Amino acid sequence: MAKEKVVLAYSGGLDTSVSIKWIQEKYGYDVIALGLNVGEGKDLEAIKQKALDVGAIKAITIDAKELLAEEYIIPALKANALYEGKYPISSALSRPLIAKLLVEIAEQEGAVAVAHGCTGKGNDQVRFEVSIQALNPNLKVVAPVREWGMTRDEEIAYAEANGIPIPVDLDNPFSIDANIWGRACEAGVLENPWNEAPEAAFDWTNPIHLTPDEAEYVEITFDKGVPVALNGEYLPLVELIETLNEKGGLHGVGRIDHIENRLVGIKSREVYENPAALILINAHKELEFLTLTREVLQFKSTIDQQFAKLIYDGLWYSPLKAALDAFVDETQKSVTGVVKVKLHKGSHVVVARKSDISLYNEELATYTQGDAFDHNAAVGFIKLWGLSTKVYSEIHNKDKQEDNHEQTVGRPVHEGNK
Amino acid sequence: MAKEKVVLAYSGGLDTSVSIKWIQEKYGYDVIALGLNVGEGKDLEAIKQKALDVGAIKAITIDAKELLAEEYIIPALKANALYEGKYPISSALSRPLIAKLLVEIAEQEGAVAVAHGCTGKGNDQVRFEVSIQALNPNLKVVAPVREWGMTRDEEIAYAEANGIPIPVDLDNPFSIDANIWGRACEAGVLENPWNEAPEAAFDWTNPIHLTPDEAEYVEITFDKGVPVALNGEYLPLVELIETLNEKGGLHGVGRIDHIENRLVGIKSREVYENPAALILINAHKELEFLTLTREVLQFKSTIDQQFAKLIYDGLWYSPLKAALDAFVDETQKSVTGVVKVKLHKGSHVVVARKSDISLYNEELATYTQGDAFDHNAAVGFIKLWGLSTKVYSEIHNKDKQEDNHEQTVGRPVHEGNK
Amino acid sequence: MAKEKVVLAYSGGLDTSVSIKWIQEKYGYDVIALGLNVGEGKDLEAIKQKALDVGAIKAITIDAKELLAEEYIIPALKANALYEGKYPISSALSRPLIAKLLVEIAEQEGAVAVAHGCTGKGNDQVRFEVSIQALNPNLKVVAPVREWGMTRDEEIAYAEANGIPIPVDLDNPFSIDANIWGRACEAGVLENPWNEAPEAAFDWTNPIHLTPDEAEYVEITFDKGVPVALNGEYLPLVELIETLNEKGGLHGVGRIDHIENRLVGIKSREVYENPAALILINAHKELEFLTLTREVLQFKSTIDQQFAKLIYDGLWYSPLKAALDAFVDETQKSVTGVVKVKLHKGSHVVVARKSDISLYNEELATYTQGDAFDHNAAVGFIKLWGLSTKVYSEIHNKDKQEDNHEQTVGRPVHEGNK
Amino acid sequence: MAKEKVVLAYSGGLDTSVSIKWIQEKYGYDVIALGLNVGEGKDLEAIKQKALDVGAIKAITIDAKELLAEEYIIPALKANALYEGKYPISSALSRPLIAKLLVEIAEQEGAVAVAHGCTGKGNDQVRFEVSIQALNPNLKVVAPVREWGMTRDEEIAYAEANGIPIPVDLDNPFSIDANIWGRACEAGVLENPWNEAPEAAFDWTNPIHLTPDEAEYVEITFDKGVPVALNGEYLPLVELIETLNEKGGLHGVGRIDHIENRLVGIKSREVYENPAALILINAHKELEFLTLTREVLQFKSTIDQQFAKLIYDGLWYSPLKAALDAFVDETQKSVTGVVKVKLHKGSHVVVARKSDISLYNEELATYTQGDAFDHNAAVGFIKLWGLSTKVYSEIHNKDKQEDNHEQTVGRPVHEGNK
Repeated sequence: MAKEKVVLAYSGGLDTSVSIKWIQEKYGYDVIALGLNVGEGKDLEAIKQKALDVGAIKAITIDAKELLAEEYIIPALKANALYEGKYPISSALSRPLIAKLLVEIAEQEGAVAVAHGCTGKGNDQVRFEVSIQALNPNLKVVAPVREWGMTRDEEIAYAEANGIPIPVDLDNPFSIDANIWGRACEAGVLENPWNEAPEAAFDWTNPIHLTPDEAEYVEITFDKGVPVALNGEYLPLVELIETLNEKGGLHGVGRIDHIENRLVGIKSREVYENPAALILINAHKELEFLTLTREVLQFKSTIDQQFAKLIYDGLWYSPLKAALDAFVDETQKSVTGVVKVKLHKGSHVVVARKSDISLYNEELATYTQGDAFDHNAAVGFIKLWGLSTKVYSEIHNKDKQEDNHEQTVGRPVHEGNK
Repeated sequence: MAKEKVVLAYSGGLDTSVSIKWIQEKYGYDVIALGLNVGEGKDLEAIKQKALDVGAIKAITIDAKELLAEEYIIPALKANALYEGKYPISSALSRPLIAKLLVEIAEQEGAVAVAHGCTGKGNDQVRFEVSIQALNPNLKVVAPVREWGMTRDEEIAYAEANGIPIPVDLDNPFSIDANIWGRACEAGVLENPWNEAPEAAFDWTNPIHLTPDEAEYVEITFDKGVPVALNGEYLPLVELIETLNEKGGLHGVGRIDHIENRLVGIKSREVYENPAALILINAHKELEFLTLTREVLQFKSTIDQQFAKLIYDGLWYSPLKAALDAFVDETQKSVTGVVKVKLHKGSHVVVARKSDISLYNEELATYTQGDAFDHNAAVGFIKLWGLSTKVYSEIHNKDKQEDNHEQTVGRPVHEGNK
Repeated sequence: MAKEKVVLAYSGGLDTSVSIKWIQEKYGYDVIALGLNVGEGKDLEAIKQKALDVGAIKAITIDAKELLAEEYIIPALKANALYEGKYPISSALSRPLIAKLLVEIAEQEGAVAVAHGCTGKGNDQVRFEVSIQALNPNLKVVAPVREWGMTRDEEIAYAEANGIPIPVDLDNPFSIDANIWGRACEAGVLENPWNEAPEAAFDWTNPIHLTPDEAEYVEITFDKGVPVALNGEYLPLVELIETLNEKGGLHGVGRIDHIENRLVGIKSREVYENPAALILINAHKELEFLTLTREVLQFKSTIDQQFAKLIYDGLWYSPLKAALDAFVDETQKSVTGVVKVKLHKGSHVVVARKSDISLYNEELATYTQGDAFDHNAAVGFIKLWGLSTKVYSEIHNKDKQEDNHEQTVGRPVHEGNK
Repeated sequence: MAKEKVVLAYSGGLDTSVSIKWIQEKYGYDVIALGLNVGEGKDLEAIKQKALDVGAIKAITIDAKELLAEEYIIPALKANALYEGKYPISSALSRPLIAKLLVEIAEQEGAVAVAHGCTGKGNDQVRFEVSIQALNPNLKVVAPVREWGMTRDEEIAYAEANGIPIPVDLDNPFSIDANIWGRACEAGVLENPWNEAPEAAFDWTNPIHLTPDEAEYVEITFDKGVPVALNGEYLPLVELIETLNEKGGLHGVGRIDHIENRLVGIKSREVYENPAALILINAHKELEFLTLTREVLQFKSTIDQQFAKLIYDGLWYSPLKAALDAFVDETQKSVTGVVKVKLHKGSHVVVARKSDISLYNEELATYTQGDAFDHNAAVGFIKLWGLSTKVYSEIHNKDKQEDNHEQTVGRPVHEGNK
């Protein structure tokens, strides 16, 4: 009788290679390995071969960079998604994509389960499993690394005993995850937040002392919130992002050092490199300042924070995501224009911006003769704007004035009389 | 019979010098000039003399830097106050202080009115007048520059006709405001948002190509949210801020280029320099990431935004300000520790942080053998965390799965069979 | 030469009748009167004739109830719009509709201005004028009642002098506004908030002692957030609302007594009657509790509050309105089902609800043998849910425990030993 | 050697009586029973005796009503705490109190563990365990009912086998929890949300047809947000609450029927009776409308929602609770005054309110001759208030006007020409 099948998200590393064997032994499933390229620079052919060598009955590989960019990164960019104001949720964006592909392949292959290589203390297990539950609640989920309870040494021994090749970079002190939206690095000396992150923790970005002395300007064109061109040249989205990763990395742009609140209740120290993500989010925000009204901008910041938190917390396939998208997409109809960014010595600064539908009105803003603003209107405005505070003060007056006097009485006052 | 008196916020510039005469003529008041130093580097003695020369019956000067720092900047720093996420509300913080001193002097001197030199299209008129209304609703407010309707040329002619000295820097193309928390620059070529701000718009900060090649590290010690020491040396607050302005300026740190939404309904292009403010807010936030719980951090960001908007909008002396302060102060009991900042080529990055009451728990966070985190707990957590989404998916399943398939069907999938 | 034309929102009352003459005299415009029925029960033919009698060169009448219901009330109902949690923004919803019709007629008729009869201290002037500005910024706005500065007696004298009929109900102590979404009543004895509103302030609803002793049940069917049927019978929207106004009014449902914060900075005492609005909003909310996920529900309450405030504040034709609508409409895809409401003695209570896409899952909720909930999952969930608080407590332990002991030490404890 | 000890929250019911024996058998602990009265009307002496009879080595009873009222209910009332806008978190408030007493007794008695009788699918287990972890992370928590996995029949058999008396009301179809802030009822026929709650589900409140025909007025005096007197008579807090429970119950006030989102991810149908809680929260809110500024009121509603959610979710002993309290307490300094409530046929309506520090200003609000409001100020206010929307419309004009015309073109317009 045919064995039941599981589809495993396979990276080619030690954990998921050992998982192929371990799942076979523990669960008796046939393992189908799914290898993906989301921009971390993997050799998919080598991964496929390795999976089969280790014991997978089938290996499927997909280049998912375009899918990641168009369907996961773009909604996040439109929402200026930065978790806790700092982290562009790069790893968090690839998880729902991988979960979806696992489910689709499992359905195509008639598998009863899917498997991932996450540990029990990270966010990614949550993102995978909540996504899988949402997409196909009938699929079982196997999490070998969380389940097996082996130490690193035991895992290596298991691999050797089962003919699984040990990667040469096993002594890398850091734990890395990467896709075209960014690279995450944790563990090792980073676990002490008083240690400055060493250069070895970084891979995509130059340290400032190795960056060019000359600044580089990049003009980014957005169409309804989507970046479509660099320096006037229209580019496919993946290429546009990769180009900004290179340019940003060259100039040392994109490093983040964060004490982050994980969904599972702990703080962790993370070091990220997100050149393209930070440049694009910043440029996008600046274009929004030009083309959205004050009311939209200020309320959208609440929406944006909720979006980042929701995705960080693993709820991509939830109806709140769809509703937030609807709000954001409506606003993005006006986010069209060009932003000029200066890359220099680790910084990326928007120095100029323009749009055919800019709401900046030079006639209203100018201090020259061309001023079209009605200065008298301010008198009535101020009166009503402050009325509620004034009424409050009149009622609570006596105490307040005493308090006030207390504060500054006795400070040195130098007077001069005519 | 004695004339009624007005207290005028006097800067020594052309507008407020002309105001002295104009108020006398138009309103018949005796003018008492109030000259303040909030860190813009004024010569108070010269200002006092100039006021008397131009016709004030009395001139009072106050060095208000300490007052500004302790009672206005500190609450803003505790609330990480950045209007629209960018502007440290530096000018906005000095307005309620100046309003309060105007009111106090007016009460001491028996004046019936106070006066300020704001135009009718800015935020500052709102901040002054709402504050004055709140502090003493019986005082009249005179706003000569908003009222007189003179062009620049007419104003100069008026000054010459009345023996008012014309400042030598009158052809400065920019409009400037400064205090120890920052410097604001607007108008001139900045009025076109597609113009990059020229070097002439900056005064406190070096351009990157003139900054030192060596990075400088600064350790900032906070006690309950208040910065108290630099590199281990305890400093008075004003000195600490001024030192960071110098160090930051040297390394090109603190420039902001913003298309800002004014309260009066227009967008304006502002260029700011806030070295100390940006360094301190960033360092303060990073210490909060270490010492506040996730729940406090994430909710406090809503409070912080509200604080910045409230003060930007002129409502310092409103009861909402007091209530926001109460929230913030309660949280700041835990914000004690040391933050290490690296200043280099225009960037200021927190590279390390420590605290005796850090909530970062290395035993929970570590990937080493010392791991104290319960990995099995995650299984139950994920189940309940995603339950609401799962139930939703089960009910809305059919449509959803069809949608999903639509999205990725037909994408290239490369398979390899064993 | 032909005179310029103004389109006046004409109610047939004294203020707008006097306005016809006053505008002619003051501005020299020809006046086109626009009479609307939004459900307040006006005789449009009589209004048309009165306008022409008083001096309008043309009178146009429109029955706008359907338009009001479909394009203004429905978005508000989907957003459960209650300003400050109490007021269903009924008057606020008709203003943007009237503004739009004024603008459209003005454009059709080639008028240069539009006019409304609002005073200078209410919200409606803001709603009219911001809407008109947004729809056609070239139109001038005339507000005769705000401009003319006549007392009531002077206005009556003016009317008599100009042959304008004085309404018989002029001594009505209250100021009333009504449309199918509700009736507002203010002024007179209501101006003292310590006065209980007299029965004379109410017109649509019975006092409780005159309501039927028998409760009445109404089943309301919603389709994607829109009420479509009562007791299983599909009804046009206007008829459905009017039926609920009658049924609710009969049972004394729909009275609101509110100290409200007006946009113009003052508090006012308002008495409303909104039977249909309150019944429908409550029923709609209850159906949302059944069919929306926790995450959507809890975030949507923020959206709902923002919607109510935005419309109350006059910003219907702003892009934020469109973005909020987009969010809400996405969520309403799931708001389909039936709600059973019990009307009795002033109260309207949802006693039952059902939906084919209900997210209430009896198998998960039940305490019977059929329980499908995984009780063990809770153990892990609680561990991680409380982890952040636990870590905080461990760090801040000593002080905290002392505080705790302080609180309850010394309270009587009765013990019994075996 | 002495056995280790556990302190069990003991209600006298079947579950916790069985727990005494089960814990002894399973864990080998000596059980100390803690019986509390939080207002559910228990006979503490009988409970003490029963605990000892069943096998507890010691039984301690505490009347904790006053503690509950003063330290848990008051902060909730100041924050108008209604979870999801409906539920006054009455059960949720007693859990942190009980947890605290369990911990204190455990510390006094030298116990190593505490125990509670919650199942694995409710909120209360979370509230207990997170609170216990926060107060004393060294204590173990035992949850026998969650752990033992017995069906109801097995539990009864176990009780009979162990000489544990079976309560006479064991066939009560509902699950009940009560304290002075309210009574919760769930399970049985309520598990189908399309069933109207039967009268048997209610105990504290009359059905409307049994309530008095005459309305009753109650004047509630608040001092800084705390209710201190009824009809002018100062009362201890517990007595005040109990009186309002009686009066409200008599008039049928306080029933709630809710489909609630539990923290553990499911929806449950709950029926509550909270006469005093609903009356006091409503009265308190109305006094806030009178005495707080618009800005405070509108922001406080965000704080209030967060408070209710936080406590519902079990985080009473978290630092966010303390910070929310600080905000709320600052605002409550102004919440002093008298509110008149009319109780009648199931409804409780605030019909009048007054305060020495009321911000309602009749001179500003009046439509009589005494009007002190500056009507001209509105003109300038409206201009700037709508400026952002106007600029947007001018830029996006063409499309917008076309859209607008589309909407209403073709609708019937009845014209009359002079």
